[in-house]
Amino acid sequence: MRIARSEHRTPDGPEARVVVAGPDGWNDVRVVERLRLERRGATPAAAALLATALVPGSLARGLDLGDEFGEALERAAEDSSGDAAVEPARFLVPVDPPAYRDFMAFEQHFVDAGRRFGHTAPDVLYELPVSYMGSVQAFVGPDDEIPWPSYSERMDYELELGIVVGRGGRDIRPDSARQHVLGLTILNDFSARDIQSREMAGNLGPSKGKHFASSAGPCIVTLDELEVEALAMSARVNGETWSSGTSGTMLWSIAELVAWASAGEVLASGTLLGSGTVGGGCGLELDRFLSPGDVVELEVAGIGALRNRLGERRAGGWFPEPRPRQRQAAEVG
Amino acid sequence: MRIARSEHRTPDGPEARVVVAGPDGWNDVRVVERLRLERRGATPAAAALLATALVPGSLARGLDLGDEFGEALERAAEDSSGDAAVEPARFLVPVDPPAYRDFMAFEQHFVDAGRRFGHTAPDVLYELPVSYMGSVQAFVGPDDEIPWPSYSERMDYELELGIVVGRGGRDIRPDSARQHVLGLTILNDFSARDIQSREMAGNLGPSKGKHFASSAGPCIVTLDELEVEALAMSARVNGETWSSGTSGTMLWSIAELVAWASAGEVLASGTLLGSGTVGGGCGLELDRFLSPGDVVELEVAGIGALRNRLGERRAGGWFPEPRPRQRQAAEVG
Repeated sequence: MRIARSEHRTPDGPEARVVVAGPDGWNDVRVVERLRLERRGATPAAAALLATALVPGSLARGLDLGDEFGEALERAAEDSSGDAAVEPARFLVPVDPPAYRDFMAFEQHFVDAGRRFGHTAPDVLYELPVSYMGSVQAFVGPDDEIPWPSYSERMDYELELGIVVGRGGRDIRPDSARQHVLGLTILNDFSARDIQSREMAGNLGPSKGKHFASSAGPCIVTLDELEVEALAMSARVNGETWSSGTSGTMLWSIAELVAWASAGEVLASGTLLGSGTVGGGCGLELDRFLSPGDVVELEVAGIGALRNRLGERRAGGWFPEPRPRQRQAAEVG
Repeated sequence: MRIARSEHRTPDGPEARVVVAGPDGWNDVRVVERLRLERRGATPAAAALLATALVPGSLARGLDLGDEFGEALERAAEDSSGDAAVEPARFLVPVDPPAYRDFMAFEQHFVDAGRRFGHTAPDVLYELPVSYMGSVQAFVGPDDEIPWPSYSERMDYELELGIVVGRGGRDIRPDSARQHVLGLTILNDFSARDIQSREMAGNLGPSKGKHFASSAGPCIVTLDELEVEALAMSARVNGETWSSGTSGTMLWSIAELVAWASAGEVLASGTLLGSGTVGGGCGLELDRFLSPGDVVELEVAGIGALRNRLGERRAGGWFPEPRPRQRQAAEVG
């Protein structure tokens, strides 16, 4: 199944709709449900009200409804009536995640990128899947412009798989973890390398190096339709191929990433887990960086292509003033 | 103004209500609004519907409504009628944040705690307020039990101020940042020190060292009622004082933390910003750690006390199996 979100205009401004690829094109899931309820005797107004509650514009809030929502997605995937057919003018980020956590599961990336930052790969990266939480407010979708923050000169992309959690849980074990996964999408974990390397010297984060924007899309494809261990992944900048790799080189399986993300904590439905950058999947590893106006296109076989253009660097942002060390001075004196 | 959330029982299970301290005790903000709407000619059912939309159980979604919600809080703070008076049986975490970001603004903590982890305080901690994103799913409230994850033996508390963003924004400047702050609460950033020190060697996060639980509460106090630069802060474990400090030792002001959090990115209404641990405000700095059943009570003058008991350590969680290094071997060979 292929799941996406499209934007529609309304008198109250743009509205997100969940759409699913049917036998003959995209179907609007809420329309499929509204018409089904009408066939079961609901008045049009009552059917619209219940269909809106069952299929909200937020994919994450829909997933919170469990099987009831899952079956609505399946009905839309099978609907060949044409009654709910839509031709989306614009796709949105397919999920609005309540949490975004990015792993670092590709050895080639963390060895080679670490070297650029002057580090050797630490042992822990081979002992457990290390991750950080990113900003859910940062997400933009296909063809959205990437805002270039005033505090950075060195902009980069990162070619990743996005794992969308369909059913939340806690202490999920690897052998049942795939049942908690809705599917995969493409994730571009845009990175401001200059501020990132500065702040990561503080042993926290990264934060400002990432939060200005992350993109995901164009759709989510369920695991049964993908050869998960052998997905070809590539990145093009202004049409030139900069990166190519495969999902087969991950140190940890998708099931292990989901299990570890849920160990001892709540993993919410709709959470987006990043795989980490595929080997060679960013400019840092190539010593090439992006410029304003560049178009970055990430492609993953079986999912599609995610394209974003970099905006102009913003001017005039506030930046903190350094503080003097006090504690060390006191100890020396 | 003092703002909290209380739990009420309903036929559909527990429900969160936003409450505000009035002249004679806590007032239920939704009830104040419902009665106001009725006085303006609304039917009881219509008044209840609109009051529920204006004052949801989620403080963050209320704050999203801007001035309309802010004025409802103010009316509840002034209401001495007794018509909306409540005596909460249980307080919840006062805000359900859409984002949680923890700074490290107290020099004494990062110098002394860093030394325990074997680090000298890096320069960047004096150059800008470094932070990481935590888990919003981790939050529990006053008197909630802290689940002790199976993968940790070394449990600690962290005594922090929680800054609640009232009005979101982007590129907020320090001179207007206080207008974006709803108020302060008490934050306990519970920490599993063993897994934290392991995963932080990977230069990301922390993640598993923090996400099992964070607590905040018991209420939010607006800045006009607090002497923000001189708040006495203390921590007691089973009644014994382990930590005492003051907010006056922060390297960065609250306004600067808010400004930097919003630089080049969206700061959402309801976001919780942690100040970082006050100097001496955790067991790591004292080489003392918590045991199952311990009661940790954090107190901040003018706000109150936040108490939590540690649960029993859980058994039998899944833990990843180490992977062999491949990339380095290939290079050497």
